[in-house]
Amino acid sequence: MSQTPPTDDAALARVLDRIDADLPAALDRLKALLRIPSISTDPAWREDCARAAEWLRGDLEGLGFAARLDATPGHPMVVAHGTAGQGPHVLFYGHYDVQPVDPLELWHRDPFDPAVEDTPAGRVIRARGAADDKGQLMTFVEACRAWIAEHGSLPVRVSILFEGEEESGSPSLVPYLKAKGDELKADLALICDTGMFDPQTPAISTMLRGLLGQEVIITGPERDLHSGMYGGAAMNPARVLARILADLHDDEGRIQVPGFYDDVPELSDELRAQWERLGFDAEAFLGAVGLKHPAGEKGRTALEMLWSRPTCEINGMTAGYTGAGFKTVLPSKASAKISFRLVGRQDPAKLRAAFQDFVRARVPADCKVEFVNHSAGPASVMATDHPAFEAARRALSDEWPREAAFVGCGGSIPIAGYFKTILGMDSLLVGFGRDDDQLHSPNEKYDLESFHKGTRSWARILAALARA
Amino acid sequence: MSQTPPTDDAALARVLDRIDADLPAALDRLKALLRIPSISTDPAWREDCARAAEWLRGDLEGLGFAARLDATPGHPMVVAHGTAGQGPHVLFYGHYDVQPVDPLELWHRDPFDPAVEDTPAGRVIRARGAADDKGQLMTFVEACRAWIAEHGSLPVRVSILFEGEEESGSPSLVPYLKAKGDELKADLALICDTGMFDPQTPAISTMLRGLLGQEVIITGPERDLHSGMYGGAAMNPARVLARILADLHDDEGRIQVPGFYDDVPELSDELRAQWERLGFDAEAFLGAVGLKHPAGEKGRTALEMLWSRPTCEINGMTAGYTGAGFKTVLPSKASAKISFRLVGRQDPAKLRAAFQDFVRARVPADCKVEFVNHSAGPASVMATDHPAFEAARRALSDEWPREAAFVGCGGSIPIAGYFKTILGMDSLLVGFGRDDDQLHSPNEKYDLESFHKGTRSWARILAALARA
Repeated sequence: MSQTPPTDDAALARVLDRIDADLPAALDRLKALLRIPSISTDPAWREDCARAAEWLRGDLEGLGFAARLDATPGHPMVVAHGTAGQGPHVLFYGHYDVQPVDPLELWHRDPFDPAVEDTPAGRVIRARGAADDKGQLMTFVEACRAWIAEHGSLPVRVSILFEGEEESGSPSLVPYLKAKGDELKADLALICDTGMFDPQTPAISTMLRGLLGQEVIITGPERDLHSGMYGGAAMNPARVLARILADLHDDEGRIQVPGFYDDVPELSDELRAQWERLGFDAEAFLGAVGLKHPAGEKGRTALEMLWSRPTCEINGMTAGYTGAGFKTVLPSKASAKISFRLVGRQDPAKLRAAFQDFVRARVPADCKVEFVNHSAGPASVMATDHPAFEAARRALSDEWPREAAFVGCGGSIPIAGYFKTILGMDSLLVGFGRDDDQLHSPNEKYDLESFHKGTRSWARILAALARA
Repeated sequence: MSQTPPTDDAALARVLDRIDADLPAALDRLKALLRIPSISTDPAWREDCARAAEWLRGDLEGLGFAARLDATPGHPMVVAHGTAGQGPHVLFYGHYDVQPVDPLELWHRDPFDPAVEDTPAGRVIRARGAADDKGQLMTFVEACRAWIAEHGSLPVRVSILFEGEEESGSPSLVPYLKAKGDELKADLALICDTGMFDPQTPAISTMLRGLLGQEVIITGPERDLHSGMYGGAAMNPARVLARILADLHDDEGRIQVPGFYDDVPELSDELRAQWERLGFDAEAFLGAVGLKHPAGEKGRTALEMLWSRPTCEINGMTAGYTGAGFKTVLPSKASAKISFRLVGRQDPAKLRAAFQDFVRARVPADCKVEFVNHSAGPASVMATDHPAFEAARRALSDEWPREAAFVGCGGSIPIAGYFKTILGMDSLLVGFGRDDDQLHSPNEKYDLESFHKGTRSWARILAALARA
């Protein structure tokens, strides 16, 4: 078993210097991983997913990790344990699979032929997966490499889990975590799959919204009718659905499902002040998509709407004839897909039932309603009073021009919820992505600065966790 | 020029006998027409529309009509003039185009492979267009065929106009009627595109609702967004649209567009009494499509809702992701197709403007709205004191088990309005459809009895008009 290395400033400085010197080689390693088209959702790329997993396993083994692949019904898990015997134990999570690349014609280069490009905003690594998540997960691997190279071992006990199905709904993850809980449980999870607040300001995502997806299908007449022959006398399910959807929000933008706000906490004054200091530019954020006015609850800032307030959105709806031209049909069915983003302690199961009651109360005698239940997961709120959070925040602040912030995240990162509910551990979500990384879109990129300073950030965080 | 044939009972009896004997051949002709997929709304079927027109032209020419096709910017008009030189002049109208067939998977046979099927309610001809309108228009053609075969010519002067754009809003019709008014104007129009009051009771439709079709497209963000990243802060156009659609009716079922009821007359006591005598079975009418409760304005009978009250129906709506599964998209656009059935002197142009104002008043600052104007035609109310109406009513009553009735019609037959306003002639609307014909729906059919006795009915009406 290795010695635990020193973690004082001088020791850390040597690690940071090594990272700087090793950057060209680190970039070559990242490019090698990016060349493997590990698209998880399409069976055509199954072998490539396995190749990416094996590449990572081999790299970690080369660093001295006890690394292996665990088969799943889908793509393999890479699991590795470092050699340090002392200090807190962290489990680092990332995913080696990537999104499909279509529409391919919108890429200006082969998505699996990575290159460093000069852009007006700086140098970037261009490839599918550069930011999501290969570039991000390699920041952690490179930080480990530098610590080991410089001091022979890591300052904390490190385990690593790389998944290969994140972009296709992680079907194997929950059973795997349940089966391997004893092996994988650590003091804290580290997740690198999020972004900076802005290019100067690093962020630790401590509030992730949950998600509740629900499909509603209203049936009126048994079959589509002619709106002339039946219009007026026969109940139109599209009209019923429109009224239900319209009732979901009041004029103030509040969601009208009874009990919806019961478990929604107000922001603490401290967090509110922190967020205000961030100087979020709502105008620029909305302006980028052609909008001007925050559309949620009146009296809330755009940042609150995105990070700390629950939402109800219509993601899809359809009824009757939707092709070109016109058809005077009185439809038999009308349906909508609706999702709720959840915060605080909102309970997805309780709200699903409340929503269904809300709908049923608005379905007239001549219509029937069916529900299709889609995904449900609660919000994750990290216990930021855990000393690791403040230690990591200080470490990040040392690396970047501006003070790091605890932020929210409008999207849902289910892995953080699973780590909490299955393994009983909080997650420290730190990532170096930028808003313009084109995740899931053509021409995905990762800034060279994100890769370099991200690696340095993890080197600092590992030292800080050892000292916390 | 042919001799005008005798129109006494014996002459008519010979024609009716010939119709009976010729039924199998008549059915074969109808099937040949039904095999042509003349869907007018979709450019993919343009050639087939032309084929259907040519089929009809050729058939009429074979009967001795001077028949031709007139090109239009859309599908051609079939126009034909019979050879009889005496008596009143009638213009018969029908349409050879049909509705689209989707959803195709709900048909139990190929919609364009017609067949006679035995059903518990009798024998039917099953195909798209069997009732609307190919089967109906062929009842008139077959009646002419029998008169000509038996007596060498027709008892009245007959012109024929078959349109190919009725199911797509008849964009070429008005300019065509204006250009050809002198040629097409007759004493009376005959239109076969309506139904029986019930399977025993033939009907002459003397009140037709008008139609106003309108598409509304609401745009919010410039592109589809991720509902996690933007949900709550970005305006969702589906939510805006749902509120507009929900606002269209109040809780009493009345339409909320300002001024909507200004030109809607109350029924006369006389007509109300006539309609009450019909003994309309609202329960059976709605029960046939799985419904129980008249859904229109409170305090109105179902027959009023269908024949003499205006309506507003959502014919189609769509937004966001409507495929299988779930996608957390915040859509950029949401759209609906809405139609109004008009009565009395409601003005389509005035109501279109009022509706657009109603929508604009409900579009928030961050959304924009576009309108696509679809067809618009006022209601038609016939002058039933014209002696032809009573003569036709008696002729129909001779053919069917029960006395024929003057009825209203929930659908819109804009052609009747155009004949009145452009050519200055009333329309005698007689048709043999039944409520369960599945017009515009999968598995459309026309009863063999409708086809057979319908042909006999026109043979009788032609004689009656000659004697009126």
